[in-house]
Amino acid sequence: MDAPASLELPVVFRHHAFCCLQQRPAGHPRGSCSAQGAGPLWERLGGQLQAKGIADTAMVGTGCLGFCSAGPLMVVYPAGVWYQPKTIADIDEIVQSHFVEGNPVERLIVVLSR
Amino acid sequence: MDAPASLELPVVFRHHAFCCLQQRPAGHPRGSCSAQGAGPLWERLGGQLQAKGIADTAMVGTGCLGFCSAGPLMVVYPAGVWYQPKTIADIDEIVQSHFVEGNPVERLIVVLSR
Repeated sequence: MDAPASLELPVVFRHHAFCCLQQRPAGHPRGSCSAQGAGPLWERLGGQLQAKGIADTAMVGTGCLGFCSAGPLMVVYPAGVWYQPKTIADIDEIVQSHFVEGNPVERLIVVLSR
Repeated sequence: MDAPASLELPVVFRHHAFCCLQQRPAGHPRGSCSAQGAGPLWERLGGQLQAKGIADTAMVGTGCLGFCSAGPLMVVYPAGVWYQPKTIADIDEIVQSHFVEGNPVERLIVVLSR
């Protein structure tokens, strides 16, 4: 990170999850996270954060994060972990392991390059 | 960050800017970043990144980031810097100082608490 240590900025959220909600028409060559089933996954994520009272983790929907073929995509900062969850069970595992226990779920991490 | 060092995840973007595009009806008590002039600012940001060929910085529009009264809001990760730019000149300064030179613009940083 580039911020000078002197700034001493507070950490607002322990985990901040950015969830792609991009939609594209059926048959579009790039596809989209929504077409790959993102909606119900992010809905589950929000529901789990609320149900478990996980107040130090925030989530927000975004436009296209790029890397569309790797969707559904979620990037979690400040760790910089990019996830490709496929199922509700994947979401539940990320919530419990990463957001509650602090252990990223390695099997769901996509390694991307620019 | 909680990720074990053993993960050795690549840094996909040096700076990743998340820009609130939330809209609410006129007169809504929470207001919104769009109502506070966010749109033209983020448009300028995208234009400047492209014009200057800044390939290691990405930006994306988001839903509500919270802290609506502090808008227009943009959070830059992995640094975790929350900005409240008000003018096109503010955006240009963030682009040049933070994204090109690596020096966050302290006067535009909003200090937030959960």
